Amino acid sequence: MKIDILSLFPDMFAGPLGDSILGKAKDKGLLDINITNFRDYTTNKHNNVDDYPFGGGAGMLLQAQPIFDALKHTQDVAADEGLPKGKIILMDPAGKTFDQHEAEKLSKEEHLTFICGHYEGYDERIKTLVTDEYSLGDFVLTGGELPAMVMIDSTVRLLPEVLGNSSSAPGDSFSTGLLEYPQYTRPADFRGMKVPEVLTSGNHQKIAEWKQKESLRKTFLRRPDLINYDNLTALQKKLLAEVKIEEEP
Amino acid sequence: MKIDILSLFPDMFAGPLGDSILGKAKDKGLLDINITNFRDYTTNKHNNVDDYPFGGGAGMLLQAQPIFDALKHTQDVAADEGLPKGKIILMDPAGKTFDQHEAEKLSKEEHLTFICGHYEGYDERIKTLVTDEYSLGDFVLTGGELPAMVMIDSTVRLLPEVLGNSSSAPGDSFSTGLLEYPQYTRPADFRGMKVPEVLTSGNHQKIAEWKQKESLRKTFLRRPDLINYDNLTALQKKLLAEVKIEEEP
Repeated sequence: MKIDILSLFPDMFAGPLGDSILGKAKDKGLLDINITNFRDYTTNKHNNVDDYPFGGGAGMLLQAQPIFDALKHTQDVAADEGLPKGKIILMDPAGKTFDQHEAEKLSKEEHLTFICGHYEGYDERIKTLVTDEYSLGDFVLTGGELPAMVMIDSTVRLLPEVLGNSSSAPGDSFSTGLLEYPQYTRPADFRGMKVPEVLTSGNHQKIAEWKQKESLRKTFLRRPDLINYDNLTALQKKLLAEVKIEEEP
Repeated sequence: MKIDILSLFPDMFAGPLGDSILGKAKDKGLLDINITNFRDYTTNKHNNVDDYPFGGGAGMLLQAQPIFDALKHTQDVAADEGLPKGKIILMDPAGKTFDQHEAEKLSKEEHLTFICGHYEGYDERIKTLVTDEYSLGDFVLTGGELPAMVMIDSTVRLLPEVLGNSSSAPGDSFSTGLLEYPQYTRPADFRGMKVPEVLTSGNHQKIAEWKQKESLRKTFLRRPDLINYDNLTALQKKLLAEVKIEEEP
């Protein structure tokens, strides 16, 4: 997968994209990340990328020209590499909410481009370049860099061979539709706090049932909207009924 | 405000916390960010921070001990500085959804601590340290670092004096409850794409009305859930009625 990032702050990406999963994906040759500072594409003599809004208002807006020309360049390079135009992504509070389903869709693409806004906003005409607008949630950030990194992390970890342990991805919360059960590691007694006995019992059937039940309990208590009753197995339905009785006030 | 971050990947933060608003807030002395690698607090001879889950399962879990002891240290330092314990924050898919309202609440705190998980998960006993669990949304990430940065960015920009232009923050989407109207900057005609005429008319009243109407239009079309009809002014109600007629199929 190739990811193009258009940003005024390329240095922001060095740490997050160097460490951890993304760095490993790059080292394995599974990921090619290219960061373009669109300030390099300004045609005005002061290399300004922003200007005052028409009609007044606080703050400065990103101008269309530098982003249009930077994107033209990255798309030309990608075309020379035999890559499709792919998705051109802009973060916008009015965009569709990013979730695991969207991450799975993006992970199937060969080429993604993230346009990172900054300042108060951007010239609306930039949206004519964009194929997908996303929002991470109902909060305001100073720029598009951090949400782009979040989306990239969430997407790239789904690429085949990126996660070392191939069984890690499907068990996560949101992949199974249920929240994960509580997990414990050594020591069994940490400063007086003990792990649930069943987990050290060696009884695999009981352990498997406990995990399912606690996963259902957590989802029932904290995210009941995630439970699709029709998709539950007969055992899960029985366990959920037990949970409901146990959690009755 | 002091922010403590407990992370195995301190280098991830250098870029995002150095550039942009957060760097400026630190330079102005409004923000003190301290990153602690909890691997430095392990008591085992190989400095391991993770171990296999009790009861089996894929992946490794963060152990309780290094995080307990790292937090003890950062809390002792903060107490010496006269700071309260503050909020101890963990990212968890079952946590409450982070939004602008939560950012505003956190921006009122003197001291925040973010515990960044990694690997498959963490020992459940770590949660006994935590005052607030947050989720950014229904997607899976490889670690808690990026969502912590997102929350920090969203929170710190609300601190008094952080944003250069003090009128910038309240006009943002989600602060007013409505999405922002489309914005345009020079040139008025960019490669054949023109800005709406009203914005270059010089008629301030018409411009103000256009902005309100387009803000309502965007919200009506893309996030109708954000419109609280009872909170609209008489003019906004009239404009929304016009929008509804204009947008009828």
